Amino acid sequence: MSLSLDLNADLGESYGAWVMGNDDAILPLITSANIACGYHAGDPSVMRRTVTAALQHNVAIGAHPSLPDLMGFGRREMAVSPDEVYDLVVVQIGALQAVAGSQGGALHHVKAHGALYNMAARKGELADAIAQAVYDVNPSLVLYGLAGSLQIQAGLRLGLQVAQEVFADRTYQQDGSLTPRTEPNAFIVDIDAAIRQVLSMVIHSTVTTADGQVVPIQADTLCIHGDNPSAPAFAAAIREALEREGVLLQKIS
Amino acid sequence: MSLSLDLNADLGESYGAWVMGNDDAILPLITSANIACGYHAGDPSVMRRTVTAALQHNVAIGAHPSLPDLMGFGRREMAVSPDEVYDLVVVQIGALQAVAGSQGGALHHVKAHGALYNMAARKGELADAIAQAVYDVNPSLVLYGLAGSLQIQAGLRLGLQVAQEVFADRTYQQDGSLTPRTEPNAFIVDIDAAIRQVLSMVIHSTVTTADGQVVPIQADTLCIHGDNPSAPAFAAAIREALEREGVLLQKIS
Amino acid sequence: MSLSLDLNADLGESYGAWVMGNDDAILPLITSANIACGYHAGDPSVMRRTVTAALQHNVAIGAHPSLPDLMGFGRREMAVSPDEVYDLVVVQIGALQAVAGSQGGALHHVKAHGALYNMAARKGELADAIAQAVYDVNPSLVLYGLAGSLQIQAGLRLGLQVAQEVFADRTYQQDGSLTPRTEPNAFIVDIDAAIRQVLSMVIHSTVTTADGQVVPIQADTLCIHGDNPSAPAFAAAIREALEREGVLLQKIS
Amino acid sequence: MSLSLDLNADLGESYGAWVMGNDDAILPLITSANIACGYHAGDPSVMRRTVTAALQHNVAIGAHPSLPDLMGFGRREMAVSPDEVYDLVVVQIGALQAVAGSQGGALHHVKAHGALYNMAARKGELADAIAQAVYDVNPSLVLYGLAGSLQIQAGLRLGLQVAQEVFADRTYQQDGSLTPRTEPNAFIVDIDAAIRQVLSMVIHSTVTTADGQVVPIQADTLCIHGDNPSAPAFAAAIREALEREGVLLQKIS
Repeated sequence: MSLSLDLNADLGESYGAWVMGNDDAILPLITSANIACGYHAGDPSVMRRTVTAALQHNVAIGAHPSLPDLMGFGRREMAVSPDEVYDLVVVQIGALQAVAGSQGGALHHVKAHGALYNMAARKGELADAIAQAVYDVNPSLVLYGLAGSLQIQAGLRLGLQVAQEVFADRTYQQDGSLTPRTEPNAFIVDIDAAIRQVLSMVIHSTVTTADGQVVPIQADTLCIHGDNPSAPAFAAAIREALEREGVLLQKIS
Repeated sequence: MSLSLDLNADLGESYGAWVMGNDDAILPLITSANIACGYHAGDPSVMRRTVTAALQHNVAIGAHPSLPDLMGFGRREMAVSPDEVYDLVVVQIGALQAVAGSQGGALHHVKAHGALYNMAARKGELADAIAQAVYDVNPSLVLYGLAGSLQIQAGLRLGLQVAQEVFADRTYQQDGSLTPRTEPNAFIVDIDAAIRQVLSMVIHSTVTTADGQVVPIQADTLCIHGDNPSAPAFAAAIREALEREGVLLQKIS
Repeated sequence: MSLSLDLNADLGESYGAWVMGNDDAILPLITSANIACGYHAGDPSVMRRTVTAALQHNVAIGAHPSLPDLMGFGRREMAVSPDEVYDLVVVQIGALQAVAGSQGGALHHVKAHGALYNMAARKGELADAIAQAVYDVNPSLVLYGLAGSLQIQAGLRLGLQVAQEVFADRTYQQDGSLTPRTEPNAFIVDIDAAIRQVLSMVIHSTVTTADGQVVPIQADTLCIHGDNPSAPAFAAAIREALEREGVLLQKIS
Repeated sequence: MSLSLDLNADLGESYGAWVMGNDDAILPLITSANIACGYHAGDPSVMRRTVTAALQHNVAIGAHPSLPDLMGFGRREMAVSPDEVYDLVVVQIGALQAVAGSQGGALHHVKAHGALYNMAARKGELADAIAQAVYDVNPSLVLYGLAGSLQIQAGLRLGLQVAQEVFADRTYQQDGSLTPRTEPNAFIVDIDAAIRQVLSMVIHSTVTTADGQVVPIQADTLCIHGDNPSAPAFAAAIREALEREGVLLQKIS
């Protein structure tokens, strides 16, 4: 049996007259897209255009629900209750699901955005609320979450298919969490080191932590940062390295 | 074959800490609810609570999409393109459809709100955009529109089931349109006169215009204004009058 | 020298078609109003109407800036930086100041709303950001804050005139903070006990804590909860009790 | 007496994580900036940064109020009443005025944005509402408006100082209005022709219309489109041509 990996990126993060990211350059390089649903980015017309572009590239369509914070791009944590999170996620999945359906496609997965993603990784009640929302709207959707986090556990508990997400450019800690961005060694800037980390995660299911320990990790999907100007080049390099090792790049199925 | 009529009301128009309307008093009296989808009213939690209440009362659940104007409650006309309207309606239907599904229900119909409703009655391109959005999300949904208007024609052209909506408290003109609110004789304030108008529309498929002509009209659904304090009393009176005449009060099916 | 107290209430918290509170009943009973500035409530037209009403009642006009969260009514804490808070407060003060000026009045004070008020009471950086915003827009404005809190200290440090705010219906802890709402004894429901607490705070500058200690507190202004149906009755009762004791009810000057 | 001209551009139209325009390249080339106030663009932090940059370049600071439509960037006409427009403009002027003051500057002018600008050029009631808002907030502010339009007349009637705005890249009609964008000859793409039009308007106070007539026009300020990639080059060229003819480039005073 061959190894495989999904490459996902956040797309459709323009809004009205504002353009963000370089979706056209990223789409040929990824296998799944997390599309903004209007709460941190992505007005209804942007949602439709992004869905259409994803369909043209045969990229899996995912909803990318967020806290309600356009001004903060969904990056500011908010004191939301589990019920509020459940309701926010249901309507955002529904919106993107309808866009996908109206354009002849189908929704494939859900990945929480920004602050909501981070909160869901470490707060069990919010992780459960997101998983329940996904389950209640469509239990065949795949739930993406930080590898090894509470979000993954919440999805598994409900019987959802999950995709454990890993990062090429972030270092890990012994408990499997990401080194906080405020730490000096949080980022991997050397592209070869980033590729080595990904290969280790995919082929050996391990990652070497920032302090040199080898810990287990499951890598189902790799995050490609679409808003980074060097993203297309990095994605091309990582694709080449993975394919050289015989790793299939394909959407979660 | 017996005559029948649907009684619809706009519900779920609270938002955050603000309460509007008297949904609990209206729900026992109607057969279908048009539920705000977040663009003029109705945050995600209000949407869920309203859907749940409608399900408890066996009231048909409809999406009530609007122009994006919380501050103006969707009542201000905007220069939106057909594409913008299509996209706005798709995402709002999708959001409410997901809420309904997540709570064990199903979406039944779509009725545009406020300024969008009025624009869709007289602008063919916007009427078509709304009908196409409904069709593309779910062609089995019922499209509500002003009786005899371009919205109805647009729905029929696509093969959608339509519900022609009539008003008890508004006078009509010879072309079947409502007398503009700015005209002195636009409103019917006498409750008996309002009931007589409804009975005529339902039983004889005619309405007497403001200037005394009798013109044809089809009445599939009657609008009950939920935000009016006297709405429950009026709805009870109209129900009694209709049932006395043998008219079945039931949702469109 | 006679004792005096300001009675303040949050007003202008309607938005668009939604009405909140009973401003007309509250205005005759208070001496200063904290008027929403559009970020948790209060659209531009509501702001003008509320300012006009306050001027008619000779009630001091204050800006009531909030986190940007209409859906949550400014009650949900958010991870905002001091710079973000500074900027949010500057624009909200400016908006209300312009409304007051355009209607022939002048801005008198600033009181943060909801979650921002609570955060400013205990987080020094945010307290400083608010105080600096007030100072930079107009150093003659009075800064309201929770009695004894970091917000008061921040204002004093910049040389701002401050008003220490106390509550009639909340119990206090030994450090002068309010007992959290989640605690069973957080609220004082007996109206006579509430009045006794206020009299003690105003006349003796002390309050008896939830666990029976007598601690010092300075009471410059008392919060009247305008959105409570019993608020007018309570305000009338507290006014009568204070006047009986010879306490002057007047705005901070 | 020498001729003079103000060069204005719309700045500060970023929002949250979204960047628009090239403010840094435009600022050295203009004499006045119209800064977004949060309703079509420009969150509070963008407002502060833009004001600070304008102060550093000694560029006059103007408020650029808009209809409330972030999603449509203020470009969609809305059915707003004169009272609504008055209130919207007062709060937006106030917000930017406070930002300017807090950073050690002062507000200099007001120019309506997008759809509001266009509506104010041809609808007297809205033109009056804007002029009255400017007057009521600060009667020493300069009101910018389309040269010869109702906005200019409304300002003059109240005794406001006005600045008549002209365009280099748009053709004019006999009544002094701009040729609608939908017409084939609406735009002047040849940069030399655009410069000739500006020189004629500034030096001779006339413009040659799209159909070859010479009609009078007053040119106090020229609009530089900041969101156009070629804007810096065009602005440099127009500056050179004007200076060669001895026209002083300076803010309205």
